[in-house]
Amino acid sequence: MAIERETVENLLKLTKPRWKTSITKVEPNRIITRGYPQEDLIGNISFPEMVYLLLKGELPHENESKMLEAVLVSFCDHGVTPPSTQVARIMASSGAPLNSCVSGGISSFGKYHAGALERSMCLLQKIIKENVDFNNPKTSHNDLKNLALTTVEHYLENAKKIPGFGHRFHHKDPRPGKLIETAKKNGCFGIHTELAVIVENLLLEMKGIRMNIDGANAGILSDMGFDWRFGTGIFMIGRVPALISHIHEEKSDETPFRKFVEVEDVYFHEFDSVNHDLNKNEL
Amino acid sequence: MAIERETVENLLKLTKPRWKTSITKVEPNRIITRGYPQEDLIGNISFPEMVYLLLKGELPHENESKMLEAVLVSFCDHGVTPPSTQVARIMASSGAPLNSCVSGGISSFGKYHAGALERSMCLLQKIIKENVDFNNPKTSHNDLKNLALTTVEHYLENAKKIPGFGHRFHHKDPRPGKLIETAKKNGCFGIHTELAVIVENLLLEMKGIRMNIDGANAGILSDMGFDWRFGTGIFMIGRVPALISHIHEEKSDETPFRKFVEVEDVYFHEFDSVNHDLNKNEL
Amino acid sequence: MAIERETVENLLKLTKPRWKTSITKVEPNRIITRGYPQEDLIGNISFPEMVYLLLKGELPHENESKMLEAVLVSFCDHGVTPPSTQVARIMASSGAPLNSCVSGGISSFGKYHAGALERSMCLLQKIIKENVDFNNPKTSHNDLKNLALTTVEHYLENAKKIPGFGHRFHHKDPRPGKLIETAKKNGCFGIHTELAVIVENLLLEMKGIRMNIDGANAGILSDMGFDWRFGTGIFMIGRVPALISHIHEEKSDETPFRKFVEVEDVYFHEFDSVNHDLNKNEL
Amino acid sequence: MAIERETVENLLKLTKPRWKTSITKVEPNRIITRGYPQEDLIGNISFPEMVYLLLKGELPHENESKMLEAVLVSFCDHGVTPPSTQVARIMASSGAPLNSCVSGGISSFGKYHAGALERSMCLLQKIIKENVDFNNPKTSHNDLKNLALTTVEHYLENAKKIPGFGHRFHHKDPRPGKLIETAKKNGCFGIHTELAVIVENLLLEMKGIRMNIDGANAGILSDMGFDWRFGTGIFMIGRVPALISHIHEEKSDETPFRKFVEVEDVYFHEFDSVNHDLNKNEL
Repeated sequence: MAIERETVENLLKLTKPRWKTSITKVEPNRIITRGYPQEDLIGNISFPEMVYLLLKGELPHENESKMLEAVLVSFCDHGVTPPSTQVARIMASSGAPLNSCVSGGISSFGKYHAGALERSMCLLQKIIKENVDFNNPKTSHNDLKNLALTTVEHYLENAKKIPGFGHRFHHKDPRPGKLIETAKKNGCFGIHTELAVIVENLLLEMKGIRMNIDGANAGILSDMGFDWRFGTGIFMIGRVPALISHIHEEKSDETPFRKFVEVEDVYFHEFDSVNHDLNKNEL
Repeated sequence: MAIERETVENLLKLTKPRWKTSITKVEPNRIITRGYPQEDLIGNISFPEMVYLLLKGELPHENESKMLEAVLVSFCDHGVTPPSTQVARIMASSGAPLNSCVSGGISSFGKYHAGALERSMCLLQKIIKENVDFNNPKTSHNDLKNLALTTVEHYLENAKKIPGFGHRFHHKDPRPGKLIETAKKNGCFGIHTELAVIVENLLLEMKGIRMNIDGANAGILSDMGFDWRFGTGIFMIGRVPALISHIHEEKSDETPFRKFVEVEDVYFHEFDSVNHDLNKNEL
Repeated sequence: MAIERETVENLLKLTKPRWKTSITKVEPNRIITRGYPQEDLIGNISFPEMVYLLLKGELPHENESKMLEAVLVSFCDHGVTPPSTQVARIMASSGAPLNSCVSGGISSFGKYHAGALERSMCLLQKIIKENVDFNNPKTSHNDLKNLALTTVEHYLENAKKIPGFGHRFHHKDPRPGKLIETAKKNGCFGIHTELAVIVENLLLEMKGIRMNIDGANAGILSDMGFDWRFGTGIFMIGRVPALISHIHEEKSDETPFRKFVEVEDVYFHEFDSVNHDLNKNEL
Repeated sequence: MAIERETVENLLKLTKPRWKTSITKVEPNRIITRGYPQEDLIGNISFPEMVYLLLKGELPHENESKMLEAVLVSFCDHGVTPPSTQVARIMASSGAPLNSCVSGGISSFGKYHAGALERSMCLLQKIIKENVDFNNPKTSHNDLKNLALTTVEHYLENAKKIPGFGHRFHHKDPRPGKLIETAKKNGCFGIHTELAVIVENLLLEMKGIRMNIDGANAGILSDMGFDWRFGTGIFMIGRVPALISHIHEEKSDETPFRKFVEVEDVYFHEFDSVNHDLNKNEL
């Protein structure tokens, strides 16, 4: 029995591809990522080059590859002080499998933790984009200083922290200096990083506050052409190995299900719907 | 133009249903769950009845519904001492959204935390299944006592904890007594719960250890016909509301990104690959 | 040897409680939730009453308890069409443990999925709060109609969807009618729900669009005094049982690691950094 | 007023360090990872060297660093066919934030997906450990062939798949060949990889099945001295960048909340508690 073309075409509509991607083409016995067969990439490109290829769609220049490597290395670890590491270890202690613990760590990156990189990139990119004419980009140091001053004053007047500056554990974070030196060496010190440095100079003079790792990497990644929306992702790539290491340490060296909180550590108070300020909760 | 049936059938193969379910049938303007239009369920059945319907495929008897309600209520909260609650609150403090925090809490239920209910159900169900002839189920209290004694001795000889007994914060957990009383009132006190009670009597005499909430609920849920694989799920349903409440409390009443760990709280030691016992790590 | 008071006080500072809560007070052998010993709650209050107690700090009136029960039941399940259910089942198929799968499902509730309830509650609460004088709350139906009309026109002019109205699978969602009927029966039909109903009438006339489950529950929960920030949480409590049921179904009835996507289902295209619109990506 | 020493010591007990780590020592203005100040690592070591340092506690030799780089690159991406990538994209489509989507992807690595690497490492390490005398490690190719044959026969008799061999999309996975070539070039082709190659030869002859990427990397990582418990972690480090890239692609190039499943794609059947095989469900 024959069926009409129209019917068939209607049936075919159901089979139209549900998935579309430009990242990797998979065929039997062939896996092509961003145009390169994977067997040509393995053993030939560095891991940061692969990261760049995946995120930006093309391979980086050698200096960019070295710079991205330094950025990823700089995010490595901060001991057990970050909430994400505490979360990963508490989960490990309760017997959750490795992937759950890493996921917990990654999901802990919120507005306040790890979010600073993204917010710092967003701020720098916005200031430069709105104020610098890239057809005529000879912005003088003085222009940048004015932009920096306006920004700093705006934040200070509103009693808000500038993302990328100040650190709750370090008066002078030891990482930004080395990152900026590496950026200069690899030709990745551009207008965004310069702006960040000027902001630091102002803040240091006015409030004794210095640049932190997020501020330095925000400038550098922006100068490398990474949209701010990639900030948290790049931080994650750099931090995941340490999360794994902490989870293994907790599982190997500690007693399972140890008490992180004793009854005596907890202060119980009556619920007070008046002082319970849900509006602080932005969700 | 006409196309041959065979061609069409080949095309149709591509459209064979990828998804299959017996839980809810969705059609335009109709949503039928386990055979009931949802508009007939809303306002007519209790939430525990809905839970039972979803998990077991049919509505419970009234006494089973009341029992399941008591079980769910009993899992409600244990303050900030459980790792899952700490995880949810630490994540909330770092600015993660509500769902991430709840997910983190739920993923923290591991072998040691919350896993006890499932392992306790598994143990009770295995003992009864392997030793009781259900075609002739008149098992005397004495038979159960022998089964319990063998089990307790086996665990004590191997210096292992019996899941469902002992609590790291309570010498006498206040919940099991009320649960067992409720089970008796609702005709849900059967052979599994009886076995659990006998195990408690032995353990109390031999080691001063009592039943905890997991032991009581393990017996009761087993007597209600819940396979042990549903244990963690039922615990989750009961605990999620408290996780949400804790997350809101943290976001509403605490300073964001407060320090859960101070530098002084951390002891740093050199890595020692010899004493680093990866084999403890079952992953 | 004696030590000076000041020294001791400094030491004591280190031991100041890290954790503070008003939800549950835990002491050896005593667990008090919102003022009630848990053994008095088990078997005596319903699960929705427990939810209310945890979220709002006090027990509800009987009609509120019945209403919340209906709301929770109404969120039960929507088959395999929601992204969260697909995510939970795909994870189950790859061999992930139950908690990971439930977490994945819960984390899938985003701006577009499940977020509608919260955004609908926020919209209704904002309109009422900004326009109705609660010291003199005799707002006539005509006043509400004007508020509704302004809102609808604003959304339509901006070609945006009003959260809580329209459903991608149902022209007439079968659940809102029953929910509103239940609200009227239980004295929970107030100004927010009335506003939602008026918006529906306008939208139906102008665009043929009806209220969906989120719109109905947004009105009802608002009239019950739930801040919009609790929306996603309440949805979660209602939906978790179905996620568990779907995960068990996938694990019990399907072949593990089945192919959800065939190579032929995927369309590969070249990466195009020009049309690749990162700005759509709000992250 | 003075206080007795004993009292003070009791107070001090409360302040004993809750956290212990050998990974990173954090002091004001100093961050020392595995003995190296971070400012000395940034710009001086490669990312795979950092991974090695974090996981194994010391820096690798140059050849090991190159090998680990190739391994990490090889895990980069497999388009949208892996469940983890589908999960990440479905979550992205529903409006979940980046970290939630990455977490969902990572939590999808289960027994069947990504678990193969770990299980393959475990198998190879177990065979070698139990059969090779490392004080006298001159195991001939013939000995290994016997070990391989016993293993293959055992799996085939039990109709089970050997982890690390066979791929559901490729008859001949293009990656293992290049990985093994790279291992030989970098002196990382040892007894475990040789065993894997012999298993492949046997399987190819007997069943036409070849080694996949997990089998090759299982051998190589084992020869590099990585305990099998690090398998999933190393896979994760390699795959996270692609997850991030897919999430950005979904958010940038697709319509939010697109339908992954149509009502017509779903087959609804009656629940059948008899054929519903919960025992398949290992949880």
